[in-house]
Order: sequence, then structure tokens, then C-alpha cells
Amino acid sequence: MKFNNINVYISEKATIGKNVKIGDNTVIYDNVIIGDNSIICNDCVIGEPLNDYYFNNNYENPKTIIAEEAFIRSHSIIYAGSSFGKKFSTGHRVTIRENSKFGNNCRVGTVSDIQGHVEFGDSCWLHSNVHIGQKSKIGNYVFIYPYVVFTNDPTPPSDVCIGPTVGDFSQIAVGTVLLPATEIGKHCLIGAQSLVGGKHEDYSLVIGNPAKRIKDVRDLKLKGTDASHYPWPINFSRNMPWEQEGFENWKLKSGYEND
Amino acid sequence: MKFNNINVYISEKATIGKNVKIGDNTVIYDNVIIGDNSIICNDCVIGEPLNDYYFNNNYENPKTIIAEEAFIRSHSIIYAGSSFGKKFSTGHRVTIRENSKFGNNCRVGTVSDIQGHVEFGDSCWLHSNVHIGQKSKIGNYVFIYPYVVFTNDPTPPSDVCIGPTVGDFSQIAVGTVLLPATEIGKHCLIGAQSLVGGKHEDYSLVIGNPAKRIKDVRDLKLKGTDASHYPWPINFSRNMPWEQEGFENWKLKSGYEND
Amino acid sequence: MKFNNINVYISEKATIGKNVKIGDNTVIYDNVIIGDNSIICNDCVIGEPLNDYYFNNNYENPKTIIAEEAFIRSHSIIYAGSSFGKKFSTGHRVTIRENSKFGNNCRVGTVSDIQGHVEFGDSCWLHSNVHIGQKSKIGNYVFIYPYVVFTNDPTPPSDVCIGPTVGDFSQIAVGTVLLPATEIGKHCLIGAQSLVGGKHEDYSLVIGNPAKRIKDVRDLKLKGTDASHYPWPINFSRNMPWEQEGFENWKLKSGYEND
Repeated sequence: MKFNNINVYISEKATIGKNVKIGDNTVIYDNVIIGDNSIICNDCVIGEPLNDYYFNNNYENPKTIIAEEAFIRSHSIIYAGSSFGKKFSTGHRVTIRENSKFGNNCRVGTVSDIQGHVEFGDSCWLHSNVHIGQKSKIGNYVFIYPYVVFTNDPTPPSDVCIGPTVGDFSQIAVGTVLLPATEIGKHCLIGAQSLVGGKHEDYSLVIGNPAKRIKDVRDLKLKGTDASHYPWPINFSRNMPWEQEGFENWKLKSGYEND
Repeated sequence: MKFNNINVYISEKATIGKNVKIGDNTVIYDNVIIGDNSIICNDCVIGEPLNDYYFNNNYENPKTIIAEEAFIRSHSIIYAGSSFGKKFSTGHRVTIRENSKFGNNCRVGTVSDIQGHVEFGDSCWLHSNVHIGQKSKIGNYVFIYPYVVFTNDPTPPSDVCIGPTVGDFSQIAVGTVLLPATEIGKHCLIGAQSLVGGKHEDYSLVIGNPAKRIKDVRDLKLKGTDASHYPWPINFSRNMPWEQEGFENWKLKSGYEND
Repeated sequence: MKFNNINVYISEKATIGKNVKIGDNTVIYDNVIIGDNSIICNDCVIGEPLNDYYFNNNYENPKTIIAEEAFIRSHSIIYAGSSFGKKFSTGHRVTIRENSKFGNNCRVGTVSDIQGHVEFGDSCWLHSNVHIGQKSKIGNYVFIYPYVVFTNDPTPPSDVCIGPTVGDFSQIAVGTVLLPATEIGKHCLIGAQSLVGGKHEDYSLVIGNPAKRIKDVRDLKLKGTDASHYPWPINFSRNMPWEQEGFENWKLKSGYEND
């Protein structure tokens, strides 16, 4: 049904790997490199030129690197100058601006808007409609849920730009705003619709407007039991690197020591 | 101006009713059924294949059923395996995933994102930019306003999925988050930017973060009067089945008894 | 790379200025006027016909006026019957409905949704994912940040529509909801994720859910100093008309007296 090679435009300066599918009405611009076995669905724009393109005759498109087994869903726009590790996937209508770096196995949900100049580790899952401002820095195994906004200007409007940082294994629940320069440690859970600033230590449960640390996430017990779902990697492993062997074994084997 | 039959792709396995208009650059995939007198605007994708399509050579697209007089605005993506009653309409850039069921006369606003495996009754109006998570169940005559999010995972991340339920005639105002398993009764009004959990009885006005029941909606008086706008069907009938005869007469005639 | 004149449709009834670039897959409908030196990127729809088009054989598209040096990024939809001053620019996937009026030098960010029947002055900057309901009225030099929603129905659902008004130099931070008929004065700063109603005097800092006036913005001091960033035009001038000469000189020279 799909991939009929209708109205496809691929620059001669793009490098397309083996066994790559490219959808109808999709455009791939100069200096894009797409890894083997990737799927780029219909109506996508890959390697969208930066602003300078429109006003500078000598413009050259910076490299865009998409590693193997990417799965970019339809109507997504990825600017030139970003790089994506293996198995990168997106929902529909994603916008990712220049100088974004993603590790392996990351996902970005439908309509999410990554403003560029950001850094993500491995296995980050951004759900639908997430907005990540420039200069944000996110670790590994981080979940960001719908309608979360990362901000970066402490005295708007200004030219100061200090994005939030989020540590490994942390989660930001729906509708939450991270104020500029917020620092979230590892294994934190930031509750829904919170307004969060400041610095939060590892394993914090942070909730409210303005948000406060409520307790240690490990003290969140499942209803009617004395067990906790947190740290979550013990109880959830789908598509995570410890899926086969379990979190504890994986930590030992992988040398993940900072946990 | 529109409907110039440019770059249109319609599967031979699709069934298109009488007097259906299909916009330029629109794609209609296998096993889509579109009812008479429907308008599918430009740049839409109808019957988008499920994930399995990309990885299974024997994939067959499930049926997508769009009843008569649909009006799908441009750039909308509707996955295969969903069904829509009569007079279904959308704004632009709507995304509706598989196994979504809509009754008659429903509307979904621009950029809204319906995650699939959800159920809507008749005459539901979803405004722009609404996010409905999987396993949500919504009754009839329900209004959902911009930037509302329905969630479903009580202990993220996990594989548990318990969506909210919303009763007939209820409304969820802008920016509100419904937590997993929230139960909203009939004729409720959930105020703007609330964070709502738990179970709320019929006719509740619920507001805040965290949200609480404030009063009976019928005790909300119009400024300077002793009259209430609620229950709203007495005062508002545009495009509702009681538009001609009034709510009370319609209830008697239609046998709507659960009110 | 771009502007290959592929799959472009321009109505014979459109008026295109000198040195205008029009991207691939873009459509320009009847009675659109585009000023000199404008860039309309790929996959845009300019002069989208109003609802009436679909149901009225005698429909004539109202004029759409885009002044000189516009820069409309890809996948944007601009309805017929709106007008835009010089140097209007947008992000991607913007939707702007009919009867919207924008002054000079305005910007509308990615995925923003302007519902029509609204008025903006000069140099307004709307960031990504802003939702402006009908009948909103916004002054000059106003900043609106991501996920802000302007509402207009005081007793939903109803046919009453009273949008908010915002005065010159004011800012609405991320995730904030303005309730119907809210009046924001000049030089106000409305904090992130606030729920705002009522009337707020000039120079107010307004924060919270429900939002309250906290102090005069000029009493917000920069950390460790006795200086304030506000009124911001003294400290920020990028792309503003006082960029060259400074705010005080500009006020004198331009005759801006209402400040």
C-alpha cells in the first residue's frame, strides 16, 4: 500500500543505506545519512535546511545522521545538523530542530517539538506533544509524558538560555513545566501538572504548583501492599536493554555504576 | 479551487460512497469504507496501516468505516481499524489511532491526538489539541476543551492501562488532566487546569490541583440572577438532537431515561 | 535544494509579488495577495476556503493579504479572509483561521492554532503551540509562550464569546490559561501555568492557580542585585523597533505616549 515512490525527492548528496524504505511525498535534502534497514514514512522532510539557507547563497547543509533501523512516522520534519542513534523512532508530525543529539533506542511522540541544541542519552521515550526548549540536557532511560514543557529563559524576554537537566531513569508526568535551569536527579518522578524549579536529589517524588519534594519514590507503595513500583527498572523492562536479563544483572554486566 | 484530483491515491480495495469529494494529495488505503456525501479534504491519510504492516508480509489492513456525511479536514491521519458514525467531522492535522469507535455527530478539533482503543458515544465535541489516551471511555454529548489530557498508567512506566470514563453531558475544561481510572459522572463540569482523580458523582463541579468537588453545577448561578446555565442542554442545543424540540421534549420522545 | 516548483498550485486569481519563493506541494487559492520578497515554504495552504465553500455553489474566497517579506514555514495553513503586516513569520504547521489581523513584524510558532476573529498589534511573538480563541485582542510587543490558551466562553457550552485582551509589552508564560474576558494591562508578566481571570493593572506580576497579583514587575530584582529586568524593553531589543536607538529614545521619536 505504502512506498509507491510517488513524488519522492532525494538529494544526490544524501547517503541512503541498504534496505531503506522511503515513503511517498517525502523529501531528503543534502548531506543526510540514513542507516541500513530504516523506514522513513510518507510526507517527511529530512535534513530541512537551517534559516541561513534562505538568506545566504553559499549555504551548505550540515550533516544529518540517522543510524540503522530508524522508524520515522509520517509528516515529520527533521532539521539538518542533528544526529540520532540506532533504532530511533518517531510518531507523526514531529519537529526536531538543528543540533539535537539523540542516543540509541529513543522515541519521540506525535506532534512533539524539539527546539534544537539539546542532548538525549539512550532509550529516552518522549510521548506525544512534548516541547523541549533549547539547551536541555536529558540522561538515559528518561520518560517524558504528553504536554510537558522544558523552558530556558529565566527573565523573559532575554538572550539568556539555561535549559533543565534530567538524570537517568527519571520521569516527568503529563502537563508539567520545568523552569529554566531546573536540575532533576536520577530516578525521580515529577507528578502531573507540576511547576518545577530548583534542584531535586535522586529518587525524589516532586509534585505541585509550585512543586515540592513529597517523599522518596521508593516509599510510594502499591495499593494494599508493602511493595513499591520504584525504582521502576526492576518492574518494567519493555524495550529496555535489561529486557532479557533483568535490571540487576544488566547493571552488573553493563558496568552501569552510577546508579 | 479544491478537489482537482492531483496526486490522489485510492486503494482498489477501498469502497467510496456516492458523491464523495476527495482532496488533492490524499491517500486512502485498503479496506476503507467511506459513506455517501462525505468530504475528505486534501493531504489526508485514511486507513493508515498499523505497525504490524511494516514488519509482517502477510499483513492485511483492518476495516475502517466512516459513515455518511463525514467532513475530514486537511492533513488528518486516521488509522485503519476505527469506525465513525454519521456526520463525523474533524479539524486539521488530527491523528486517530486504531480501534477507536465514535458514535454519530462527533467532532475532533485541530491537532487532537486520539491514541486508539477508545470509545465515544454520540455528539461528542473535542476541541483543538486534545489528547485521549488508550482505554478511555466517553459517553454522549460530552465536551472536551483544548489541551485536556486523558491518562491511563497509574504507575508509570508499566503495562497497566486503565483509562478514565466520562458520563453523558459532562464537560472537561481547558488544560485539565484526568488521572488514570478517573470516573466522571453525568452532567459534571470539570474546571480549567484541574488535576483530577477519583470518582465524581453526577452534576459535580470539580476544580483545582488537586481537584475537589466544589458544588452542584445547578447551584452555579448566572451573574446577578438566580438562574443557572446548568444542566446545559436546557440552554444550549446547537447541533444537538434536541435542537428543534428542546431538551425536555427530546428526552420524552427519544426515551432517554438515564438522565 | 528547496523551491523546485514541484506539485505547486497557484490560483489565477492570486496576486504574487516580486521575488516571492513558493515551496513544493504548496497551494495558493483565490484572492490571495502576497507581498514582495516573501518566502512561502513547502506544503503550505494559503487562502484556505472557509466552511461555506463546501456547501455554497456561489462561494467566493475573501481576500487574504500577506504584506512584504513574509516568511511562512512549511505545512502551515492560513485561511482566506485574514491579513498580515510586513515581515510576518511562522514556524511549521501553523493554523490561522479567517478574520485574523496581524500587525507588522509578528511571529507565530510551530503548531500554534489561531482560531480566527482575533486582532494582534505589531511585533507580537507567539511561541510554539499557542492556542488563541476567537475574539481575543492583543496589543503590541506581546510575548506569548508555549501551551498558553486564550478562552472565550464563560458558561460552556454557549454561544457567548468574550475573548481576553492583553496590553502592550505584556507577557504570558508557558502553560497559562486566560479565562474568558480576562483583561491584562500593559507591561504585565503572567507566570507559568497560571489560571487567570479578572482585570489586571499595568506592570502586574500575576501568578498561580487561581492567579493573583503578587507585585509590581519592576520590583522583581535580578539575583543578588538591586536592578530589575522590567520593564523589559529597556533590556531587550532584538527585532524590536527600538533595536538601534534604545527604548527611551524610540519612545520619544516614535511618539509612543501611552506607555
